[in-house]
Amino acid sequence: MEQLILLSREEAHMRVVRLQALMRRDGVDSMLVSDNANLFALCGRVYAGYAWVPADGDPVWFVRRPVELDGDNVVYIHKPENIQAYLSDAAVPVGRKIGLEYDVTAYSSIVRVMGMFPDAVFVNASGILREWRSVKTPTQVDLMRRSGMKHAEVYKRIPGLFSVGMTDHELQVEIERLSRLEGCLGVFRISGPSMELFMGNVISGKNADNPTPYDFAMGGAGLDPSLPVGANGEEILEHTTVMVDLNGNFTGYMTDMTRVFSLGEIPRIAVDAHQCSIDICHAFMEEARPGMEARLLYAMAEDIVRGRALERYFMGHRQHAGFVGHGIGIEINELPVIAPRSRGILQNGNTIALEPKFVIPGVGAVGVENTYLITDNGAECLTECPEEIVPLV
Amino acid sequence: MEQLILLSREEAHMRVVRLQALMRRDGVDSMLVSDNANLFALCGRVYAGYAWVPADGDPVWFVRRPVELDGDNVVYIHKPENIQAYLSDAAVPVGRKIGLEYDVTAYSSIVRVMGMFPDAVFVNASGILREWRSVKTPTQVDLMRRSGMKHAEVYKRIPGLFSVGMTDHELQVEIERLSRLEGCLGVFRISGPSMELFMGNVISGKNADNPTPYDFAMGGAGLDPSLPVGANGEEILEHTTVMVDLNGNFTGYMTDMTRVFSLGEIPRIAVDAHQCSIDICHAFMEEARPGMEARLLYAMAEDIVRGRALERYFMGHRQHAGFVGHGIGIEINELPVIAPRSRGILQNGNTIALEPKFVIPGVGAVGVENTYLITDNGAECLTECPEEIVPLV
Repeated sequence: MEQLILLSREEAHMRVVRLQALMRRDGVDSMLVSDNANLFALCGRVYAGYAWVPADGDPVWFVRRPVELDGDNVVYIHKPENIQAYLSDAAVPVGRKIGLEYDVTAYSSIVRVMGMFPDAVFVNASGILREWRSVKTPTQVDLMRRSGMKHAEVYKRIPGLFSVGMTDHELQVEIERLSRLEGCLGVFRISGPSMELFMGNVISGKNADNPTPYDFAMGGAGLDPSLPVGANGEEILEHTTVMVDLNGNFTGYMTDMTRVFSLGEIPRIAVDAHQCSIDICHAFMEEARPGMEARLLYAMAEDIVRGRALERYFMGHRQHAGFVGHGIGIEINELPVIAPRSRGILQNGNTIALEPKFVIPGVGAVGVENTYLITDNGAECLTECPEEIVPLV
Repeated sequence: MEQLILLSREEAHMRVVRLQALMRRDGVDSMLVSDNANLFALCGRVYAGYAWVPADGDPVWFVRRPVELDGDNVVYIHKPENIQAYLSDAAVPVGRKIGLEYDVTAYSSIVRVMGMFPDAVFVNASGILREWRSVKTPTQVDLMRRSGMKHAEVYKRIPGLFSVGMTDHELQVEIERLSRLEGCLGVFRISGPSMELFMGNVISGKNADNPTPYDFAMGGAGLDPSLPVGANGEEILEHTTVMVDLNGNFTGYMTDMTRVFSLGEIPRIAVDAHQCSIDICHAFMEEARPGMEARLLYAMAEDIVRGRALERYFMGHRQHAGFVGHGIGIEINELPVIAPRSRGILQNGNTIALEPKFVIPGVGAVGVENTYLITDNGAECLTECPEEIVPLV
């Protein structure tokens, strides 16, 4: 028998206690969690089932699969209705206000759970869970740090994978292979159903200016209209850039990181825009502190871009993304968001991917992306790797 | 400007008309579709937005991203509320009963749309959409056929990728690379949020008997508790089998296919169980016809397994999967399901992955999986490739 909880007792306790503090602040009596990312954050593993988290006391772990998990309060169930029956038999106080994951769980599943507790009032717990996950514990930071180190190691070896005549897709496949051999899990978790991505994007030349359906800073037509984003299978040409923005999920906690490569000479404006991105990242490291409003960091980036008259290329050209950074951890789109109308306030333990990017029509995309840890002593870069544009040959 | 609809006029019309027939049968007046898989089935591309499908007349395509799509009834919106305003201004009859994708769309998103139509009655349209997508048009079948051919080509080259001393993960990465270079899109679409998989599974030796949280026939501990399925990084040992069950998504429509390889001699029972799987597949090809109940095909498979006294290994050993086949197309878990209590009835144009598998403790998994097209003339295999266990060296 294997233990369900794969965290140390202290770590598991710390995570639950922090969540319960947010629940009590918002008057939520108990919460039923079933999203894979939230379960992983709670107990250190993904399983099929639910975690029942009361505002006070210990969680109950309701498991459908896998078989043979052990631990305190581990209860096997066949269907969600078994949860209500167990809580009632065990006289667990349910409370009046129950939080459910409205933003990520299908309507039918939520309605089914609501039907089990006819006397309860239901509230959306997605906001609390996002807020909870936006602040990483030292153990979670350590997992992100390990992902960041592996991520940077892979990127440093990219020029050795390139040969003249390769397509963007062929180069991407070689980076994917190297990354997987280094232990990348491959899965790129995105909260919500509308954004899809395989292992990330390699974009070169004019393909960078093809708009996508997703709220990503990067474009690209993709190989097929069923996944219209990223590499489109065209040869990497002289005088273009190659932007690499691939998956850094080596530990279940991922880093986000972008670097740019070039083939032959590239126009001055691309070099300048890339330097502007580096400068924004460095300014972010100077300025980002716990307590700061996220929207001010967006404004700071925008000011630097305006000062260099690069607005029309910033975060896209034909199509612009509306943010310059985002929280990251188990999923790619966590809190806080660095955007004009963000209500986020930076906290100690936030991990934020900052990606000031530019699309220069005909040349490609430029700009770096790093994942930063926000601490009282400043922002620490978790994806240490040279930031200049690296020639491929 | 690019056309939003990437299908021929006839194909687009045929798909919408078939969906509308199901809507009228169930008394659904109109439907608001936003799931990527359903949008792709409707118009041949994924975009961010909604399709408004009335029971009679032409759909309206509400687009948020990408920019610059063109076509009849293409309407750009910023937020879902713009849909109601447009329909009202354009005097499009909304009808009383509106279908929404309850089984795949988040509770908050559904509630937001409901709030836009205060006079409507809402129903779950997920069932109709699943039924609609379970029958493929000749154009869709052609896309699956192309995936199946590529899929088989990749599998035939697997022995050339192996060298003694490799781990299961290392072999998987080489197959992934080959597959990607042949044009595999990588993304493995699964309806619903609870099942996650990267590009599929390579399972060898005793790892095959490690139970997973997912409702898959295959086990495996995986590399990390955040994705506890499949290859676990151990060396492929003498006297074990290697089961390969990897992504066949080359066209947006995927095939599912499993083949087994061996290193050195393997026990008689593994060879016999593998032959039993092949025999079940051949019996399925003989028996599967439009009009047949899916549950009878499950019973047939079970009878064959019982006749050979292999029940304890069938569809898993420590943990058993409750089905032997499933519809497949844009997503891996389509209709009909070949399971004991399936209510599915086979139709001309169904595409079904049949995967009678066995886990032999200490040896590994055996059994084949093919994707079949159901026609009036019988079941046609879309994943033609030798079925015997292939020695790796």
